[in-house]
Amino acid sequence: MQPDIPLMPGQLLARGVCRHLASHGFSVIEEFTPERGKRVDVMALGPKGEIWVVECKSSRADFMSDVKWQGYLDWCDRYFWAVDQEFPTDLLPEGTGLIIADAYDAEILRMAPEAKLAGARRNALIRRFAAHAAQRLQLLRDPDFGLGSS
Amino acid sequence: MQPDIPLMPGQLLARGVCRHLASHGFSVIEEFTPERGKRVDVMALGPKGEIWVVECKSSRADFMSDVKWQGYLDWCDRYFWAVDQEFPTDLLPEGTGLIIADAYDAEILRMAPEAKLAGARRNALIRRFAAHAAQRLQLLRDPDFGLGSS
Repeated sequence: MQPDIPLMPGQLLARGVCRHLASHGFSVIEEFTPERGKRVDVMALGPKGEIWVVECKSSRADFMSDVKWQGYLDWCDRYFWAVDQEFPTDLLPEGTGLIIADAYDAEILRMAPEAKLAGARRNALIRRFAAHAAQRLQLLRDPDFGLGSS
Repeated sequence: MQPDIPLMPGQLLARGVCRHLASHGFSVIEEFTPERGKRVDVMALGPKGEIWVVECKSSRADFMSDVKWQGYLDWCDRYFWAVDQEFPTDLLPEGTGLIIADAYDAEILRMAPEAKLAGARRNALIRRFAAHAAQRLQLLRDPDFGLGSS
């Protein structure tokens, strides 16, 4: 969509990440808000209901300026960084997953450790994911219908 | 989307139904498959997790030829018919809800009785709804990525 707006470097990484995860049976949405004030680059819902979050960093500066990422750990079973091949991966904290991506595909280099969500939060997140995806889809299918927000 | 393909009469009703339900806080998807072999016209997910199914009938013949609808009752908390103002609503079975719709909006004339889904089925349905909406959205956002199915 939005063919006239070039994607930013982080969005290109997100696209590749989404392609890779989708090819492994995950459903994905970009720029998902698990709660007010938090926005993750990619949220992925796996075939067994597992929830992964992937933050995409296009540069060292992009990573260093992120002061929010630890707040995302409470909203997923596994947390990953996605970076390109040039990224200095030594910077990335331990205890997180690592995905190498470009605009077209991605590969998981290091699986993130699992910290399972409680059932109630998982169900609430999946419901929010469902609502978010359906609302965005409706905006695209029926652009004349002005929803106040996505 | 698909601006070159005119919508069928039932799809126009579905669009009006979706607009109405979305304006009341529901998230909606059209042509949802709750399980293999079943496809409902509109599935709506409410703000409290409630699940409604709406079948859209553009004519008496369209209604009379539907031999599957009772199979949808097991996949929602409330079941509705959506028809236009000309439709002979006396035909519609008792114990179902009634929505009068056109292509632009809709109104609930008779609330459907509630038959609450069991928790496990509700969670499975919401997960399927989430996956379905996200996959369709990804196809629209990233049309160069050929998912095998939606």
